[in-house]
Amino acid sequence: METREILTRFKNGELSMEEAEHYFRKEPFEEMDDYAKLDSHREIRSGFPEVIFCSGKADQHFVHIFKKLYEDNGEVFGTRASRHQYELVKDLLPGVEYDELSHIIKIEKKEKEHIGKIAICTAGTADIAVAEEAAQTAEYFGSHVERIFDVGVSGIHRLFSRLDVIQDANCVIAVAGMEGALASVLGGLVDKPVIAVPTSVGYGASMNGLSALLTMINSCANGIAVVNIDNGYGAGYIATQINRLAERDYYE
Amino acid sequence: METREILTRFKNGELSMEEAEHYFRKEPFEEMDDYAKLDSHREIRSGFPEVIFCSGKADQHFVHIFKKLYEDNGEVFGTRASRHQYELVKDLLPGVEYDELSHIIKIEKKEKEHIGKIAICTAGTADIAVAEEAAQTAEYFGSHVERIFDVGVSGIHRLFSRLDVIQDANCVIAVAGMEGALASVLGGLVDKPVIAVPTSVGYGASMNGLSALLTMINSCANGIAVVNIDNGYGAGYIATQINRLAERDYYE
Amino acid sequence: METREILTRFKNGELSMEEAEHYFRKEPFEEMDDYAKLDSHREIRSGFPEVIFCSGKADQHFVHIFKKLYEDNGEVFGTRASRHQYELVKDLLPGVEYDELSHIIKIEKKEKEHIGKIAICTAGTADIAVAEEAAQTAEYFGSHVERIFDVGVSGIHRLFSRLDVIQDANCVIAVAGMEGALASVLGGLVDKPVIAVPTSVGYGASMNGLSALLTMINSCANGIAVVNIDNGYGAGYIATQINRLAERDYYE
Amino acid sequence: METREILTRFKNGELSMEEAEHYFRKEPFEEMDDYAKLDSHREIRSGFPEVIFCSGKADQHFVHIFKKLYEDNGEVFGTRASRHQYELVKDLLPGVEYDELSHIIKIEKKEKEHIGKIAICTAGTADIAVAEEAAQTAEYFGSHVERIFDVGVSGIHRLFSRLDVIQDANCVIAVAGMEGALASVLGGLVDKPVIAVPTSVGYGASMNGLSALLTMINSCANGIAVVNIDNGYGAGYIATQINRLAERDYYE
Amino acid sequence: METREILTRFKNGELSMEEAEHYFRKEPFEEMDDYAKLDSHREIRSGFPEVIFCSGKADQHFVHIFKKLYEDNGEVFGTRASRHQYELVKDLLPGVEYDELSHIIKIEKKEKEHIGKIAICTAGTADIAVAEEAAQTAEYFGSHVERIFDVGVSGIHRLFSRLDVIQDANCVIAVAGMEGALASVLGGLVDKPVIAVPTSVGYGASMNGLSALLTMINSCANGIAVVNIDNGYGAGYIATQINRLAERDYYE
Amino acid sequence: METREILTRFKNGELSMEEAEHYFRKEPFEEMDDYAKLDSHREIRSGFPEVIFCSGKADQHFVHIFKKLYEDNGEVFGTRASRHQYELVKDLLPGVEYDELSHIIKIEKKEKEHIGKIAICTAGTADIAVAEEAAQTAEYFGSHVERIFDVGVSGIHRLFSRLDVIQDANCVIAVAGMEGALASVLGGLVDKPVIAVPTSVGYGASMNGLSALLTMINSCANGIAVVNIDNGYGAGYIATQINRLAERDYYE
Amino acid sequence: METREILTRFKNGELSMEEAEHYFRKEPFEEMDDYAKLDSHREIRSGFPEVIFCSGKADQHFVHIFKKLYEDNGEVFGTRASRHQYELVKDLLPGVEYDELSHIIKIEKKEKEHIGKIAICTAGTADIAVAEEAAQTAEYFGSHVERIFDVGVSGIHRLFSRLDVIQDANCVIAVAGMEGALASVLGGLVDKPVIAVPTSVGYGASMNGLSALLTMINSCANGIAVVNIDNGYGAGYIATQINRLAERDYYE
Amino acid sequence: METREILTRFKNGELSMEEAEHYFRKEPFEEMDDYAKLDSHREIRSGFPEVIFCSGKADQHFVHIFKKLYEDNGEVFGTRASRHQYELVKDLLPGVEYDELSHIIKIEKKEKEHIGKIAICTAGTADIAVAEEAAQTAEYFGSHVERIFDVGVSGIHRLFSRLDVIQDANCVIAVAGMEGALASVLGGLVDKPVIAVPTSVGYGASMNGLSALLTMINSCANGIAVVNIDNGYGAGYIATQINRLAERDYYE
Repeated sequence: METREILTRFKNGELSMEEAEHYFRKEPFEEMDDYAKLDSHREIRSGFPEVIFCSGKADQHFVHIFKKLYEDNGEVFGTRASRHQYELVKDLLPGVEYDELSHIIKIEKKEKEHIGKIAICTAGTADIAVAEEAAQTAEYFGSHVERIFDVGVSGIHRLFSRLDVIQDANCVIAVAGMEGALASVLGGLVDKPVIAVPTSVGYGASMNGLSALLTMINSCANGIAVVNIDNGYGAGYIATQINRLAERDYYE
Repeated sequence: METREILTRFKNGELSMEEAEHYFRKEPFEEMDDYAKLDSHREIRSGFPEVIFCSGKADQHFVHIFKKLYEDNGEVFGTRASRHQYELVKDLLPGVEYDELSHIIKIEKKEKEHIGKIAICTAGTADIAVAEEAAQTAEYFGSHVERIFDVGVSGIHRLFSRLDVIQDANCVIAVAGMEGALASVLGGLVDKPVIAVPTSVGYGASMNGLSALLTMINSCANGIAVVNIDNGYGAGYIATQINRLAERDYYE
Repeated sequence: METREILTRFKNGELSMEEAEHYFRKEPFEEMDDYAKLDSHREIRSGFPEVIFCSGKADQHFVHIFKKLYEDNGEVFGTRASRHQYELVKDLLPGVEYDELSHIIKIEKKEKEHIGKIAICTAGTADIAVAEEAAQTAEYFGSHVERIFDVGVSGIHRLFSRLDVIQDANCVIAVAGMEGALASVLGGLVDKPVIAVPTSVGYGASMNGLSALLTMINSCANGIAVVNIDNGYGAGYIATQINRLAERDYYE
Repeated sequence: METREILTRFKNGELSMEEAEHYFRKEPFEEMDDYAKLDSHREIRSGFPEVIFCSGKADQHFVHIFKKLYEDNGEVFGTRASRHQYELVKDLLPGVEYDELSHIIKIEKKEKEHIGKIAICTAGTADIAVAEEAAQTAEYFGSHVERIFDVGVSGIHRLFSRLDVIQDANCVIAVAGMEGALASVLGGLVDKPVIAVPTSVGYGASMNGLSALLTMINSCANGIAVVNIDNGYGAGYIATQINRLAERDYYE
Repeated sequence: METREILTRFKNGELSMEEAEHYFRKEPFEEMDDYAKLDSHREIRSGFPEVIFCSGKADQHFVHIFKKLYEDNGEVFGTRASRHQYELVKDLLPGVEYDELSHIIKIEKKEKEHIGKIAICTAGTADIAVAEEAAQTAEYFGSHVERIFDVGVSGIHRLFSRLDVIQDANCVIAVAGMEGALASVLGGLVDKPVIAVPTSVGYGASMNGLSALLTMINSCANGIAVVNIDNGYGAGYIATQINRLAERDYYE
Repeated sequence: METREILTRFKNGELSMEEAEHYFRKEPFEEMDDYAKLDSHREIRSGFPEVIFCSGKADQHFVHIFKKLYEDNGEVFGTRASRHQYELVKDLLPGVEYDELSHIIKIEKKEKEHIGKIAICTAGTADIAVAEEAAQTAEYFGSHVERIFDVGVSGIHRLFSRLDVIQDANCVIAVAGMEGALASVLGGLVDKPVIAVPTSVGYGASMNGLSALLTMINSCANGIAVVNIDNGYGAGYIATQINRLAERDYYE
Repeated sequence: METREILTRFKNGELSMEEAEHYFRKEPFEEMDDYAKLDSHREIRSGFPEVIFCSGKADQHFVHIFKKLYEDNGEVFGTRASRHQYELVKDLLPGVEYDELSHIIKIEKKEKEHIGKIAICTAGTADIAVAEEAAQTAEYFGSHVERIFDVGVSGIHRLFSRLDVIQDANCVIAVAGMEGALASVLGGLVDKPVIAVPTSVGYGASMNGLSALLTMINSCANGIAVVNIDNGYGAGYIATQINRLAERDYYE
Repeated sequence: METREILTRFKNGELSMEEAEHYFRKEPFEEMDDYAKLDSHREIRSGFPEVIFCSGKADQHFVHIFKKLYEDNGEVFGTRASRHQYELVKDLLPGVEYDELSHIIKIEKKEKEHIGKIAICTAGTADIAVAEEAAQTAEYFGSHVERIFDVGVSGIHRLFSRLDVIQDANCVIAVAGMEGALASVLGGLVDKPVIAVPTSVGYGASMNGLSALLTMINSCANGIAVVNIDNGYGAGYIATQINRLAERDYYE
């Protein structure tokens, strides 16, 4: 609806003051005691509810936001949570789950449907923490996930044995530290988008994941795009966007 | 079809020697005088025909490959071509087009259908060369493209005026050099995947695009993944994969 | 007064030995037991009293300097103080305040007038610690400060809702970690100087703030200059210099 | 004026359709053949007319924009212009000037008043090209500029001999390559904001200005903020903003 | 022979003055007009004749050294030679060969025996220049070489089709630019040492081969060691050392 | 054996179903509760049993894998183990040894034969931890090792006094931190392959081993290849591969 | 004495076997239980006794070496010692001193003469730890030291007040973190060599001293050379070498 | 002479107005048409005449300064001069010499005495250009220089054969590119200061000399300090300062 049309309808009485104002208003969010602005229109706008990046949040802020999101949505999802943060809320709300490996804290609605398919591969076992962040994020947002772990290029026959599952997904997430070559190999084997997640797994010249990031960015294979080091959440998010596009008949 | 099944069918005569061999054979490509292995199964495997990365190719290799791909597919597409390379083939084959701005050389079939929608945004006018590489790649692979150029964050009202077009796409490509902030802003405004392309546009601490790459990788917005600096082709490719998933009814 | 004039006046007896010597003397500071040279002329020279960078100071040095500055000025201000340092002085002097968030320790005169206006914006809630260092520094030096927190580019409508307050300031401080895009967006929206402060908030390729620093240095927007990572104090200082220039009628 | 107020006045007939629409409209710029969006509201919004960053512009784009801006404003200013670009326009429009040293191309109105004072210092003679870009930018925007060149720290008595001129300015620009120490020394000597411009002058570990940038960002002196390597234009712009604030009586 | 033994034999007259002196002398090389010291004992010491790194040599130095080595050994081998350097010597000496692709200049003895087997693999066609430097170096030093080009990981079936040849070698050289993942894949597939050569092939974040170097150094596969970017010569040299060890029966 | 041949033999009954299937099968490894894929064919394929990289493994995973490998091979070898991990298994299995210096945990068969010779040199005493990882790895895989420690270039006469031992080895490992010059000096003195291991020993601009890595990669000496920082295991592995080639008469 | 001359004299009986052997022998050092090689000829060769770099030494190694050096020289000097290491030896030997600030541990002969003059300047108080390492090193080796602390460029008048002392030294050591500009300013003010020591003092983009190192290496002033970050010992050592050359009449 | 003393003497008539003024005056240099400030007191202050860094100077500036320095001193010395700059002055002044290798341009007084001894060593022949800049600088300033070229660590016996000459110098300059290990080896062999000059000779990971710089800065040997990459002039300058201190009897 264009500006002129709204103004016309408003003048004609087809729109009330509130409705017209709503169109032009500037604050589709709630102020929380000055320190944060929760984005309450977010789910409507993007189809994804707001999520908490827990790391570095002050205790009272964390508890406040966690409860608020639970009240608004009936479920809540936080990444990079500490055990201490789990202690803060576990008795306040029912059904809080905390996963030591992925550092995810959540209250998730039961019997959520998981549609489509995202394949999440890791190069080694140490990459599983990041992969789980991606997997549980995608599942929270309603995607079906296949986990294919420990299939790095130093023993490439392990990857080939699972290739049919991987090739069948709408989107593949490649999680790898050290030299990060897994993404290139996957890019050459599947015809769907590969989201590459470098991890900080490694030592020496791995420079906390920077080397894996560079490997993935420079990939000679087609159909690969990269997110930040250890950013399982980001990978799970964009993979879900792609998965939903592939399954849009379901959503529409 | 599992190994055991193939072997059984083969023994039973349900599969001929050639068919069984085909399943296990190792060379679905053509050797070209020892210097290259054209991937003739590629289009079947991925739905995308092979493309030429022209930069650095020896003259005779370039001409040989260009002609071979044209003969196989009836069209051919090359990125990072020089004017000199255009001179080499323009009289050998009919309908060779060369675009000075994007450095794309191609012979493209007429009346190709372009489906879905990919929105390609640039921050400035100097980023258009890379954006065109992305746009023409996506079009060559059958995507419909909307170009929204010169909408960088230093004059953000220009971006907002085109927001409806952008939000309507299946996938958004954000092309930006200098500080590369466009990707984050787009990520906050659309609910579809954003493929970010850092460009080498800039000077000083832009370090030939490395700064823009870091900006995009560190984006605080959701739904962003990044390709290599100036890699318009890579962005056009993965955006097309996503666009096809969204329009899979068309393909199936 | 030129050298020749001083010498002439001195010979003529218009200047005493002490007055002439004063002009040429080299030590407008006080030695403190050999380990530091407090700059007692500083406030006269620059209009800003000396401030303590507390981090790394030996206990006895810290206490000694803290007390000395309090005795000289009737107030004292320290950045990057630890709780331990607060314990050292809280009972020695009246009215010591310590802020856990910004790590500022101070005794501040009551009823200080705050003039002009500096707007301090943060991208996220984790950037508030640095923003508070900037804010309290500017307030200590007599500036009026507006805090606009959690208005990062991933939800840019939050920024627009406060734009009128921001545009009304003499100087804007943009505090952001991760990809640091906030500075560019602000630079495009206001016509006053923007002092950008990259923060070490982030992970992976944020490289402890280096990525945000590069983003801000490469900004395509006009009217932006950058200080060191997490340097809230430096931003508050230069913003106050600018604010005072804008309000110079008040000072003269 | 708030949204509700505009709507009320519009309904009451106090505002015409055009006036109301103007308030909400989204396109205060002119499209130029799809490749650029000239910001015609810019001078109104920021008090600074739009300027051309000439480097990398296609010939026809450059000529088109250069003429358009001249037509709109009666003067025009471009940075990083080549001699070739000068040849393109020197006979099309009257009074085009080109400066080989600073690579500035311009048509400037005569008898422009230059108010306030900005001091521009360079460490060496090779930094003058960047300093001139800053100086002529500031002059184009109406500032009075003092040039103090070749006063680097390796012969610091040269700097002291001009200190009175520097200390008298509203804002100081410090232009230095190699180790870039000039900014710190100036920061310790003046009580006004210092805008530091690292230059790519140097060799070896200067890394094209990155070392000087790091020196300036890490300065232990107060009141320093930094712009990009060789970004004389950016320094001249923000220094003019500060200078105007100091001389706001003149502007209001 | 120990010092004491030499001295004893010398005193006993079993060694002449010249022989004893020879043992302790310090200069087993020839001075060439002060600018170079040719290592004439080198072949005796290491089994490898001296080779010329041609790049950057002054014309007269190059010609002088080229002729001297030919006279001493009856053959000569130079890397990184320019066509200009070839012009300088092609008419002075018989049988000078120059290879534009690998930039190798040489006079090589006929009917040289090539023993053992080194497999040299490249990821793409643009890596062949470096691979040829490695191959011809190894051949000059007497190794048998198998070339397996264009078998990068983006089409990994091409690599598998040649695996038997690769697995049969004493040593494998993996030459790859861009993301350099080929080395890791080979490391996982063969049980012989893999010498990895990163190349400067690539663009953007490949940083002239630094990314490929990091990939290879961080490889999760066993049995990989890395030489400098584009250092085909170094790879050919160490691979020959390994090949000779494997074929030591031939040499002893 | 080629595909066609296998199929023919299978049809002719010369191969059973199991034998044919074996040839084409895809899973020569064992799944361990989904989190790891132990490579049980590894020793057959490469001649090296699988080894545990202990760092970062979850307790139960570590114990499970440690026991499994012991059961399969009668011995087991882990690198980068913590004392805590040693506590976990020391009472579960007989003969577990843990070395605080090298962080190696192992159960090793008695009376293992050690063949050939690998010389392992360190620049300083602080590099010994990494050297021991290399040495014990090589010994576990059956190599004879000579340790020559504290022979760095700042007192080069110490190196010369052991030169005969070093020159007699099949392969030399050079372990050095700080400036890492030892590798170049060794490369000039021996005619066997030198595997260089940069260590993180150093401070300041050593950047945790990156400087030593660069030194070694840029070495002007011949016959040097480099592994990752602190990667003693990797050096011991490839040195053993080389040592075995040199002693292949023993193995065949 | 030349080789031939020694051999002649030996044959003539002018040199004994032991004397001749001594000349050619290769091991002027003592093995310490295999883990270290103490350089007992060092003081004779260089005029400087061996010193202990304590950091990272195993307890028993540290104690063993500390005692051995004390026994050989009657004094001993260690840098980067921990309090724990001090506890290990304080009761074993008389007169052990430990300085918490500089982390130096030593037993020093009384009534040592200190000759010549080295001036050691620091930019701030946090740089004093490194400066003391330099000062006490130089004093241990017999140099007279002047300490001029807290004279950084942000208050340059403090430096000028001590300039006469600085200009009178044979060598100046400039110790500075953050932006490290002190070295350049000193280089422009004195005519003696300036040894620059970057320190890791700073935060954000100081990158643990790397920025200060770059500043100093790029200095535009003459007569400056640089040692590693925080390497007070190295600066004290080379400054003593220079001081001794200046006072060589004393030594000869 | 202290301020008070000057004032007293002046009042007493022991100093004239000019003499007193001279003491306090601020401008001991000559302005050259605004673009440069020649430091005419420099030789008096430091004992070294001013030298021209020719690179990047505008033609007229270069000629002007070259002539002025010649007129003042009867000789003149410029580094990094181009052949074009030589053409500009060769006919204007008598006796201009230009050296293509070192890029030095000079008119030098005949029969200059060269005292003391500086040894200048290079690793390879490609480092000679930088070494000559150092050597000719030191000679111009009156030092005696010994050139020992092509003695890099890959053939370390070449270095040992010249060790007596090197050990006899007052100061050693080590010039090396690639891995730069020469400095460490020299530091371990001589007891005089070693000034290390990294050069940009190398390729790949040498990063234009940065790797050699890091090697030298991290040297484990004592008595080494480092100047900028390719900075032969800086090394020749500080080596001359040291050489003069060692020969101070000659100067005093």
